[in-house]
Amino acid sequence: MGGELSGNPAAVISRPVEAGSNDPHGITFAEGSKYYDRVQGSGVGAVIVPLDAPEMDCPTIRVDAPRAAFGLLLHRAKQPLPHNPGVHATAIVEGATIAADASVGPYAVIAPGAVVESGATVHAFCYVGPRCVVGVGSVLYPHVVLVEDVILGRGCTLFPGVVLGADGFGYVWTGSEHAAIPQVGGVRLADHVDVGANTTIDRATAGDTTLGQGVKVDNLVQIAHNVKIGPYTVIASQVGLAGSAQIGAGVLMGGQAAVADHATVGDRVILAGRSGVMKAVQEPGEYFGLPATPIREAMRQMALMRKLPDLLARLEALEKKSQS
Amino acid sequence: MGGELSGNPAAVISRPVEAGSNDPHGITFAEGSKYYDRVQGSGVGAVIVPLDAPEMDCPTIRVDAPRAAFGLLLHRAKQPLPHNPGVHATAIVEGATIAADASVGPYAVIAPGAVVESGATVHAFCYVGPRCVVGVGSVLYPHVVLVEDVILGRGCTLFPGVVLGADGFGYVWTGSEHAAIPQVGGVRLADHVDVGANTTIDRATAGDTTLGQGVKVDNLVQIAHNVKIGPYTVIASQVGLAGSAQIGAGVLMGGQAAVADHATVGDRVILAGRSGVMKAVQEPGEYFGLPATPIREAMRQMALMRKLPDLLARLEALEKKSQS
Amino acid sequence: MGGELSGNPAAVISRPVEAGSNDPHGITFAEGSKYYDRVQGSGVGAVIVPLDAPEMDCPTIRVDAPRAAFGLLLHRAKQPLPHNPGVHATAIVEGATIAADASVGPYAVIAPGAVVESGATVHAFCYVGPRCVVGVGSVLYPHVVLVEDVILGRGCTLFPGVVLGADGFGYVWTGSEHAAIPQVGGVRLADHVDVGANTTIDRATAGDTTLGQGVKVDNLVQIAHNVKIGPYTVIASQVGLAGSAQIGAGVLMGGQAAVADHATVGDRVILAGRSGVMKAVQEPGEYFGLPATPIREAMRQMALMRKLPDLLARLEALEKKSQS
Repeated sequence: MGGELSGNPAAVISRPVEAGSNDPHGITFAEGSKYYDRVQGSGVGAVIVPLDAPEMDCPTIRVDAPRAAFGLLLHRAKQPLPHNPGVHATAIVEGATIAADASVGPYAVIAPGAVVESGATVHAFCYVGPRCVVGVGSVLYPHVVLVEDVILGRGCTLFPGVVLGADGFGYVWTGSEHAAIPQVGGVRLADHVDVGANTTIDRATAGDTTLGQGVKVDNLVQIAHNVKIGPYTVIASQVGLAGSAQIGAGVLMGGQAAVADHATVGDRVILAGRSGVMKAVQEPGEYFGLPATPIREAMRQMALMRKLPDLLARLEALEKKSQS
Repeated sequence: MGGELSGNPAAVISRPVEAGSNDPHGITFAEGSKYYDRVQGSGVGAVIVPLDAPEMDCPTIRVDAPRAAFGLLLHRAKQPLPHNPGVHATAIVEGATIAADASVGPYAVIAPGAVVESGATVHAFCYVGPRCVVGVGSVLYPHVVLVEDVILGRGCTLFPGVVLGADGFGYVWTGSEHAAIPQVGGVRLADHVDVGANTTIDRATAGDTTLGQGVKVDNLVQIAHNVKIGPYTVIASQVGLAGSAQIGAGVLMGGQAAVADHATVGDRVILAGRSGVMKAVQEPGEYFGLPATPIREAMRQMALMRKLPDLLARLEALEKKSQS
Repeated sequence: MGGELSGNPAAVISRPVEAGSNDPHGITFAEGSKYYDRVQGSGVGAVIVPLDAPEMDCPTIRVDAPRAAFGLLLHRAKQPLPHNPGVHATAIVEGATIAADASVGPYAVIAPGAVVESGATVHAFCYVGPRCVVGVGSVLYPHVVLVEDVILGRGCTLFPGVVLGADGFGYVWTGSEHAAIPQVGGVRLADHVDVGANTTIDRATAGDTTLGQGVKVDNLVQIAHNVKIGPYTVIASQVGLAGSAQIGAGVLMGGQAAVADHATVGDRVILAGRSGVMKAVQEPGEYFGLPATPIREAMRQMALMRKLPDLLARLEALEKKSQS
C-alpha cells in the first residue's frame, strides 16, 4: 500500500472488516473523527487512516487515500467460486457447444444448440435452455436458469436464482378465459451486465428484452417483456419495470421503485426509492414519489402533508372569524 | 393469413419482431399512423397492415385484422420446451406414480407418494414433494419446487423458481421466542392456472390456499397461507397478498399492489399498480392508492397533493387579510 | 385434549381444517358467535369450542382453550420432510465435513471445506458453498443456495429458493463504467432463525450481514449487505432492507415495508405494511407511511388527504367572502 505502519508489526491480520468491528484479526479503515471514535477501543486488529489522523490504540497504517487502500485489500481478499475448465462428469451437455476453456459444473444442464463461450463459467444446477448463449467470460452462479432465447454478452455475472427468458405476462380475454399470447422473443444482455439473486427478466413477446452495456441489477427485481434499458443504468433491489418500459442510459433507480408499462425514463434520471413513473420522466435530475416528481417539489409536498392538521386548524379559525 | 402481399415475394422472413425493430428478417404489424411511421425507414423485413394502410417501404401484407394475423404468426413461431414422454435416467421417482405419457426431465426428484398425471411435463431440477399432484397436461419449468400437499389441476404452467407449498408465516410468542405454528394445509390450483417465475405460494395453516380456474399470476408475487383467489383473476408482478386475504373472481391487480391479511377484494375489482387494500374493497370498478380508493377520487386527491403549496399560500393570504 | 365430546363418536376425522371449511373429515375450532355461525351448517366433520359454546350441528369437543387445543392438533398433523441420516449416493460432498447423523439429500452439492453439523438436514438440490457452515439441527429445504461465507446457527430453517451470501450490490464509477467493489464478507445467522422462500440475504462487503437469535423472515424479502438485525425481530414478505440498515430487537415489519441504506430502526418498533424508514425511527411504538410516522399521526394525515377536496372548497368559500 505504500503506507507507514505504526504499532505492533507482528499483529496477525487475516481479513478486512467493517467500521466498528471488534475482530482482533480484522483490518478496517477510518476517515474523519466519527470513524476514528468507532475504531478507538473497538479491539479491531488494525486500521488504515489518512496521514493526518490522530494516534490510534491499535496498529495503524497511514496512507494518502484510506478508502482506496481498503479497496485494494478487498480485491486481494476476494476468492471467486472456482473456475475449473472442462465439463463435470455429471453435467448434461449433449448437443451443446462448450468452449474448451469454459467450465461447466456438477449437475448443470445445457440444452442442445446452446453455446457456452470461452472462459465462461456455468456453476452447479444451472439450466441453459435452447438457443441460449453464455458469452465470453460470463459467470452463472449456482441455480441460474436461462429458459430460452437468452443471449449474454461478455463478462456478465448472474447470481443464484436468476431466471432469464421465462414467458412475458401477456394474455388476451377470449370471452371465457385468458388465453396466453405466445411469447417468442428473447432476452439480450450486452457486455458486463450483472443480475442479482432471484431477479427475473422475461423474454419479449417478439424481438428482445434488452439490457445495455454495463447495466447493474440488484436482487429480486422484475423486468417484464420488451423492456429496453440503456447502458450503465443501475437498478436497486425489488424494482419493478412493467412491459415495454423504456429506460435511458445512466439511470439510477432506488429500491422498490417502479415504472408502468410503456412508460419512459430519460437518460441520467435518478429515481429515489419507492418512486413510481406512471407515464414519463424525461429531464435528467432526481425524482421522488408516485407519480415521480422533481425531488424538491416532492419533498415540499411531503412536508406539507405533515402540516395538514395545522392547515385545517388555521382554516377553521378563519371560518370562525369570518362568521363572527 | 389470407392477406394480400405487395413488395418482394422472395424476401426471407424468419421471425416475428416488435414494432420499431430494424431486423431485416423480421415481420411486425402496424395499425395507425403512429405505427406506420415507426415501420417506414426502419429496415424491418416485412409488415402486416390493415387494408386501408398507406404504401410502406418494405414488403407488406394487407389483412382485415393485423393484430390477430400477427398473433397467428406468434403461435406458429412458438417452440415449447420439449416434452419427452418417459422418465429421464437421472430423475429420482421411487415410490411416485408417473403416467406413462408424462415427461420427467433430468435431475428431477419426485417424492414417494407424489403423482404426475397424463401428459404432464416436469422439467430439469424440479422437486415434487410428498402428497403433491401434477395435474393432466401441466408443465413445471426447470427449478420449480412443490414442497408438500400441493395439488395442481389440468393445464397449469409453473415457471422457473416457483415455490408452492412452503410453510405459511405463522408464529406465536411464547414469552421467550416466536414458536412456529405448524402449517399442515396445502395449496390447490384449479385448472389452467399460470404462476410466474420466482413467485411463492404458501401452504395453508390448515385447509388450503386456493387459486381458482384460469387464474394468472406474474413473477415475484407473494401469496400467503390461506389466501383464496376466485376464477380468472389476473395478478401482476410483485403483488403481495397477506394471510387469509380473500380475492374475488375476475379481479385485476397491477404491479406491486397489496392486500392486507384477512382483507377482502370483491369480484371484478381493478386495483391499479401499487394500490393497497387495508380492509375491504367490494364494488366492481377501478381503485388506486393506499388505502385503495375509487380511482377518480384517488386521482383528485393526488392532484390536490400537488397543489398543497398553492393552498398554503392562499391560506396565508387570507390570514393576512383578516388580520389587517 | 382433555375435552368433552358430544355427537357421533364414530365420525372419521383425518385432518385439521380452517374455519368455514366444509370438509366432512376435517376438524376446526370456533370461539365466538361469528365463528359458530361459520361452522353451523358448513358440513365440517367436527369442531372444538369453549365450554360455554351453544349446541353445534356436528360432533363437538368442549375444552378450556380451543385455539390451544387446535394448535396441539396441528402439531400432531405435521409431517416434516424426511430426515434420512447419511449422504445420498448422488450428493457431491468431497472435501466437506458432514456429521454422521446429518442428512444430505439427492443432488446436493457441498463445497470443499464446508461443514454440515450434527442433525442438520440438507435437502435435494441445495448448494452449500466454500466456508459455509450449516449449524446443528438446521434444515435447508430443497433448492437453497449458500453461496460463500455463510454461517448458520442451530435450529435454523431455510425454505426453498433462499439465496444467502451472494455479493452485496456495491459499485464505484470509474469514469467509464461501474466497477464492482469486491464483496468479501459473510452472512451470519444466530440460532433459530427462519428464512422464507426466495428471500435473498447478501454477504457483507467486509465483516458480516447478521441476523440475531430467533429472527423470522418471510418470503421474497431482500436483506442487503452489512445489514444488522437484532434478536426476535419478525419481517413479513417483500420487505426490503437496504445496505447497512440497522434493525433493533423485537421489531415487527409488515409486508412491503422498507428501510433505506444506513437507516436505523430501534428496538420494539412496529412498522405497518408498506411503511418506509428514510433515516431513523427510534422510539418503540407503531409507525406507518413514507416516511414512517407514529401511526396516529399518519392515520390523521391519511384521513385529511381524503378531505382535501372539502378543504379546497372551504378555502374558496372564504376567499369569495373576503372579496365581497
